[in-house]
Amino acid sequence: MSMQDYLKGEACILTGGLLDTIHAKTTHGLLRQSDRFQIKAVIDHKFAGQNVQDVLSNIHADVPIYESIEKMLEAGVVPTFAIIGMATKGGVLPPSLYPEIKDSLQSSIHVINGLHQPISEIDEFKEIMAENKVQIHDIRKPKPFEQLHFWNGKIREVEALKLGILGTDCSIGKRTTAKLLVKALNQSGIKAEMIYTGQTGWLQGTKYGFIFDATPNDFIPGEIEHAIHECWLHERPEVIIVEGQASLLNPGGPCGSEFVISGKLDGVFLQHHPIREKYNNLEKLPDTIADPMIDVGMINMMGSDVWAFTLNTAGMNEALIAHHTELLEGKTGLPIVAPLEHGVGVLVKMIKQKLEAADHSMSKAAEVKNV
Amino acid sequence: MSMQDYLKGEACILTGGLLDTIHAKTTHGLLRQSDRFQIKAVIDHKFAGQNVQDVLSNIHADVPIYESIEKMLEAGVVPTFAIIGMATKGGVLPPSLYPEIKDSLQSSIHVINGLHQPISEIDEFKEIMAENKVQIHDIRKPKPFEQLHFWNGKIREVEALKLGILGTDCSIGKRTTAKLLVKALNQSGIKAEMIYTGQTGWLQGTKYGFIFDATPNDFIPGEIEHAIHECWLHERPEVIIVEGQASLLNPGGPCGSEFVISGKLDGVFLQHHPIREKYNNLEKLPDTIADPMIDVGMINMMGSDVWAFTLNTAGMNEALIAHHTELLEGKTGLPIVAPLEHGVGVLVKMIKQKLEAADHSMSKAAEVKNV
Repeated sequence: MSMQDYLKGEACILTGGLLDTIHAKTTHGLLRQSDRFQIKAVIDHKFAGQNVQDVLSNIHADVPIYESIEKMLEAGVVPTFAIIGMATKGGVLPPSLYPEIKDSLQSSIHVINGLHQPISEIDEFKEIMAENKVQIHDIRKPKPFEQLHFWNGKIREVEALKLGILGTDCSIGKRTTAKLLVKALNQSGIKAEMIYTGQTGWLQGTKYGFIFDATPNDFIPGEIEHAIHECWLHERPEVIIVEGQASLLNPGGPCGSEFVISGKLDGVFLQHHPIREKYNNLEKLPDTIADPMIDVGMINMMGSDVWAFTLNTAGMNEALIAHHTELLEGKTGLPIVAPLEHGVGVLVKMIKQKLEAADHSMSKAAEVKNV
Repeated sequence: MSMQDYLKGEACILTGGLLDTIHAKTTHGLLRQSDRFQIKAVIDHKFAGQNVQDVLSNIHADVPIYESIEKMLEAGVVPTFAIIGMATKGGVLPPSLYPEIKDSLQSSIHVINGLHQPISEIDEFKEIMAENKVQIHDIRKPKPFEQLHFWNGKIREVEALKLGILGTDCSIGKRTTAKLLVKALNQSGIKAEMIYTGQTGWLQGTKYGFIFDATPNDFIPGEIEHAIHECWLHERPEVIIVEGQASLLNPGGPCGSEFVISGKLDGVFLQHHPIREKYNNLEKLPDTIADPMIDVGMINMMGSDVWAFTLNTAGMNEALIAHHTELLEGKTGLPIVAPLEHGVGVLVKMIKQKLEAADHSMSKAAEVKNV
């Protein structure tokens, strides 16, 4: 149902020296889970010779790292795709990656590009593509008009519990928490599905969703509604978890109301990084991350509720996590959960109770009707 | 500086029987003001033979209405452009307009299309374009990547007072109020500029701005910032008025935080239609327009303030306007202004006072420094 669904197979990931940084969060996501591509190698000169699990904590994949496409091929690893696995300032392909892209194309490896820049339009690559009958797929290009949807209210037909993972900043772990929660719900016997809204979700092979930031603004409410509705129609889950994007108050990309209002979310889990003071990528500016109570207040005004906070704990030890959990709990009166350290059992329990309460009120209503 | 700036000249407008409806708001805007195109005719079979000022109240343009392109040409009116001047459900060209588009192209009249559907890609038109060496310009196509901007904080360099006209619904008169306010400010000796954010603003020839709903989401904050910054750099106005889009709580298109947060607005005027209960184009759904105090609260949470309400008074007589003015004033404690009936003098006065207060505090600061 989503675009370019035929793109599937073995892949390597290009991280250009950034594997251990937040800029490679797409790669980290792919190493955690990948249903569309089987990840066979990472190309990163800085960590060549190591395995990704040696470089990245919290990642258990067994994937070798090579210095270059050439070295990977010499080692007998011949994937079908090379995925650009990091974000860059301005979404532009850095010159340092040109050789790896060219080597990929010349070795008949298709390139998957999630940067904003449509690199299939670069003349130098066009020639090599034609010569080698190989393609660059720019997955962040806006979908054509005929494939886009306007909002029309059909979201009301969806009977699943609709929950969003929003955050107080971008690159803060919303997708990871969403994935963990969906997995935990299914393991506990509650049928749950995820709606992806970022390129990583598409790359990971999540079935329902769209790429939020590449969608012309007018179609975002309709695309959210359509993705949730399609998921409901075809899967009939009890719970639908919507991956949020950016944050409500980030000046570089304020968003979130579309999920809450157009997706008519029943509740929100708010991902927060207690020791982060400045917005990601805007560290040099005076803007500081807003008090998370403002996010809570705005979500209330939009007609939904924050059910709990989920924590990004990068750079925090157990003592600091405990300290900030207590602090935030006192301030917000809400449950505070650190998913990577302590799992999402608390959230699963909350959701189970809501589902039971809804069932209960439905059977009550049925009883009343039958009297 | 904006796209396709070479498109200028005499034009007719196609309204397909909708001239007197809210769907033709682009046309109404063009008839009120048009610096890019000189409007020579309207093509609308329903009102053929009349003049637009007979059909539309509050519009003083002297423009004849013809039944068809053919009839217009017979009358000796030969414009360079035909502008599609109405919105349609789903942004798709209605079949009833095909003959007028074909007649335009066959008469070597270029077509300006502001619908979402890129009609230059329709095969039938492609042939006629090629034969007649004439073009269709789809102005709502997203700009190419190289012309888009990311937000980077340069908005802080702008020393003008930055004010936004937001609204409680779409199609509620935000652009009209913005235009009136800019005009009144300039007439009162305060240098003011407008930032357009809709296609009508571009069509009207407003110099600074971008088409919000055709912009891929990730670039919206940067495009807002860039438009305001460019305006400041080149014009050095005292006041910049930003045209808002849709409304904060409309499920079919929640937006506005981008203007307030990324545009760092000093204040907001909130356009409201007191007798409108349902969102425009979503009248059949249960959703009702939110209490405007929620908009006020959200704008506060974003770090700005609503300074006054401006009213859309369609379908209201003076008595009803007075009634709702009193009601809303009591509820909000804010000034309530009906721009079309009573002008925007009250707003100009507020702005003047703010500018004087800022001047005063600046000279105070200078005094302190000089002591």
